[in-house]
Amino acid sequence: MPSQLSRRQLLSLIGKTGGSAAVLHSVRALELMAAPPAPAHHSRILTPLSATASKRPTVVVLGAGMGGLSAAFELEQAGYDVTVLEASHRIGGRNFTVRAGTVIDELGNRQICDFDDDPGLYFNAGPARLPAMHLRIMNYCREFSIELEPFINSNYNAWVVDEAMNQGQRLRQRDVIADARGFIAELAAKGVSNPSLDAPVTNVDMEKLQDYVAGFGDLNPELMRYEGSIRAGLTTDGMLDPITLKPFGSLKELVESQFANVGMLFAENEYQAPSMMQPRGGMDRIVDAFVDRLSRPPTTRARVIEIVNGDDGVTVHYERDDKIQTLRADYCLNSIPGHLMSGIKHNLSKDYTQLLGHVQRGMLSKVGFQMSRRFWEDEGIYGGISWTDRSTLQVWYPSHGSQRAKGVVLGAYIFNPNHNAEFGRLSHKERLEYATVSGEALHPGQYRAHIESGVSVVWHRMNHLLGCGGGVGDIDDLFNTESDKIRAGLLAGDGRHFMLGDQISKHPGWQEGALAATERVLQTIQRLESSRQMRSAS
Amino acid sequence: MPSQLSRRQLLSLIGKTGGSAAVLHSVRALELMAAPPAPAHHSRILTPLSATASKRPTVVVLGAGMGGLSAAFELEQAGYDVTVLEASHRIGGRNFTVRAGTVIDELGNRQICDFDDDPGLYFNAGPARLPAMHLRIMNYCREFSIELEPFINSNYNAWVVDEAMNQGQRLRQRDVIADARGFIAELAAKGVSNPSLDAPVTNVDMEKLQDYVAGFGDLNPELMRYEGSIRAGLTTDGMLDPITLKPFGSLKELVESQFANVGMLFAENEYQAPSMMQPRGGMDRIVDAFVDRLSRPPTTRARVIEIVNGDDGVTVHYERDDKIQTLRADYCLNSIPGHLMSGIKHNLSKDYTQLLGHVQRGMLSKVGFQMSRRFWEDEGIYGGISWTDRSTLQVWYPSHGSQRAKGVVLGAYIFNPNHNAEFGRLSHKERLEYATVSGEALHPGQYRAHIESGVSVVWHRMNHLLGCGGGVGDIDDLFNTESDKIRAGLLAGDGRHFMLGDQISKHPGWQEGALAATERVLQTIQRLESSRQMRSAS
Repeated sequence: MPSQLSRRQLLSLIGKTGGSAAVLHSVRALELMAAPPAPAHHSRILTPLSATASKRPTVVVLGAGMGGLSAAFELEQAGYDVTVLEASHRIGGRNFTVRAGTVIDELGNRQICDFDDDPGLYFNAGPARLPAMHLRIMNYCREFSIELEPFINSNYNAWVVDEAMNQGQRLRQRDVIADARGFIAELAAKGVSNPSLDAPVTNVDMEKLQDYVAGFGDLNPELMRYEGSIRAGLTTDGMLDPITLKPFGSLKELVESQFANVGMLFAENEYQAPSMMQPRGGMDRIVDAFVDRLSRPPTTRARVIEIVNGDDGVTVHYERDDKIQTLRADYCLNSIPGHLMSGIKHNLSKDYTQLLGHVQRGMLSKVGFQMSRRFWEDEGIYGGISWTDRSTLQVWYPSHGSQRAKGVVLGAYIFNPNHNAEFGRLSHKERLEYATVSGEALHPGQYRAHIESGVSVVWHRMNHLLGCGGGVGDIDDLFNTESDKIRAGLLAGDGRHFMLGDQISKHPGWQEGALAATERVLQTIQRLESSRQMRSAS
Repeated sequence: MPSQLSRRQLLSLIGKTGGSAAVLHSVRALELMAAPPAPAHHSRILTPLSATASKRPTVVVLGAGMGGLSAAFELEQAGYDVTVLEASHRIGGRNFTVRAGTVIDELGNRQICDFDDDPGLYFNAGPARLPAMHLRIMNYCREFSIELEPFINSNYNAWVVDEAMNQGQRLRQRDVIADARGFIAELAAKGVSNPSLDAPVTNVDMEKLQDYVAGFGDLNPELMRYEGSIRAGLTTDGMLDPITLKPFGSLKELVESQFANVGMLFAENEYQAPSMMQPRGGMDRIVDAFVDRLSRPPTTRARVIEIVNGDDGVTVHYERDDKIQTLRADYCLNSIPGHLMSGIKHNLSKDYTQLLGHVQRGMLSKVGFQMSRRFWEDEGIYGGISWTDRSTLQVWYPSHGSQRAKGVVLGAYIFNPNHNAEFGRLSHKERLEYATVSGEALHPGQYRAHIESGVSVVWHRMNHLLGCGGGVGDIDDLFNTESDKIRAGLLAGDGRHFMLGDQISKHPGWQEGALAATERVLQTIQRLESSRQMRSAS
């Protein structure tokens, strides 16, 4: 995922701050000396309402996912009167932990999870990891005393199966990673001796550069060649006897593999790099913590059918228990998936409706398997991800419960939209079989034999959501300023109606995105309320 | 740590197995298809003695570290009569977890740890992490139901302070890592276009290679230049608004830094790569588990003064309670540090004594600080290691207890022998002050202010050990076959006397090395006993 900013754009950007190399250095020094921006809710987002206010402002929040729950929590903390409506039978949205007895409410394909009733045997079907950089969600976990444990996102011992490499037979990732760094360093060494070389080596001591390149790739320092590396492990036990290196692979295979181009670079990503965390017991501990702190729980099975946005309040009509009910509030915070809003009657402005049309559906699917034995730990694999070039893409091993009897693995995490569409059309049984074949290639003779139970969660078919991870515009292009404008418009709201949720952030599919959107919307409501109070005081 | 095997040596080695590229591939496929070598003690190392044997063979084990304890356990499981003598007041050797009240028995510098009495506030002064590849220790943990939790060894959010970079001001490791991969990839791109290029790019599709190199370093794919990367994080929050990249550093600074040459590559190491584990509650859970399973605990405060190796048994004279006591056994397994054997009277053969002379003392020092608040978690740091170019080298953040109130950090891990000698000469107070200064550079305004209590463990001054991590020959040169021969000689034993311990392995300082040595020695004893039993049966 190379940056979309050209050198020229970057320099112009730096130029605006000062312009010289010295400035660059001082910018960097200053910026990095500072701790990351202190998150807004070390303290609360909203200033508490004055206790003497004649009337508490009312808010209706649509949707009880992380966006809606965090908004309701913060509003109540500040003294607002909040009602949360949720279309589904359950609270949490895509923060969804599946365990014994959990109903998976997929349209036309209802499942009930029959994992063993054991607190360690769960499957986070939605968000499953907390990047340490996502300070909002981390701070809520701290505030709510949610116990966090490390989530292992990268494991050099885990496997890769890729048709392009090793004749399609599994390899340890450590082999491929060692080869990749080695070959790149060998090429870099040739780059250093390239007569047409200019930047970036100006003023660099050539001997030190050679040492650095050799160390980077574990090259033979005399020949500056990659000849295999102990980083890949050894063919022998390596504790007592003479050791031999594993033979190394070919650059051609590497270059043609999906793994070297995607999987290997995955944990370099700004929010996938170590360390990451998970709540002990399941991601929905966070949902529970919010709900426990609300004065009344969200109203479930409440399906919104019309939103009437008025100058002095918003009226929401919803269906519950086969009856149409009506709720009126000063503000409406709406986390209904944007792509579902076209099916809901509303009088939002033409401009705002047009912005809403940019919110995409998104598709992601996961499979979870309860395994009768943690056979992967026999192979030295504790947590982390194995990669396959089949559409199931990943197998995750649980980061918790090491060396216990059983474990739940993620058996598929499908990203590609076409693959998701295809996978969603399969029956539950066919999906599990499809994922089993991928797993079996990673663990021949073990994987299928240990499966006790499986669930599939295809988010674009999940009732009341019908999508996942959809955002505005091309979500992979974080530098797209057109998408930024659309997001800003949606967050600014239309009168007293505001869209919420990860869908309006640059990180759809991440809880932090939803929390950031909540924070922004509440800042706007804070301003509106402050000026209203000033007006009524004057 | 580049491999010491030349391409020629490697090829000759592969040649012996088959010789052609096709063979190389099939060797690799076969070798990697297999799970790692099944460790010997999935089942026991020794065949249990026949119940009808007239007399149980007796063994005296010298030293109750991991080598001695594992030997005693395995011998007892097989029916041997075992006595363990330990010179110190405590059991465990360098598997040493310091917590409230622990006595640190340093010569001339006795300390008592005054951390809070809290099961999460401990400091592993010796081994502190279990590589998933170390199957022997992992299997004991499983057999003994020792709960393991992830140990975070690498953390992109942690800091680096290096005089060579950023004017000595701290940087996030993610910045340096992104820059390093970027510059190396930019050089590699120049290497690809080097007219004198030959191997390894034969037959490689140039377009795919460019994509791969660009992806590896997150280059601007049009210019094949490194221009900063989102992997380093952003100057802005990145959730809602237009984003800007952080300015990137200079190759010159990188190349001259210690971090880019050492720290950054550290977790690429074959036994430092993720995932790693730690026992919940402290490394000495493993010691406790062994001791719990012995028929009688090791005899502590038993200082060996003479070993008499005879044809039909070994006599050990030791001092305890100011009295000389004598023990006679069929075998003696000796894990006394090799460098201390010169002070113990013995009649080992001249050849064996000469081999013993190769075992080095080794020096390693650690500092542990109890911090009143986990201030590093405010900065998005959960576990992992910050690096400094001062001799204290590392600061480790606890991988457990995230978001609790207090935590124990490792405040120094000194590797360099000269630095260790120097550090060991300081008073306890001076050591803590020295480490505090390093920590303060990593966490300005936070580190010193939060220190509640500190301990220093200087292994080369610890009573009855006077060393740590010493091995045979140059322990960094794993390919040295002279050292391999010395190790083999020591493990083969001298008559009925055998050396034990990590000191005789290629991985001194690692518990797995001690377990591997135990395994080898017990295999020899198994052979000796089998042939003796056959002789007595005939």
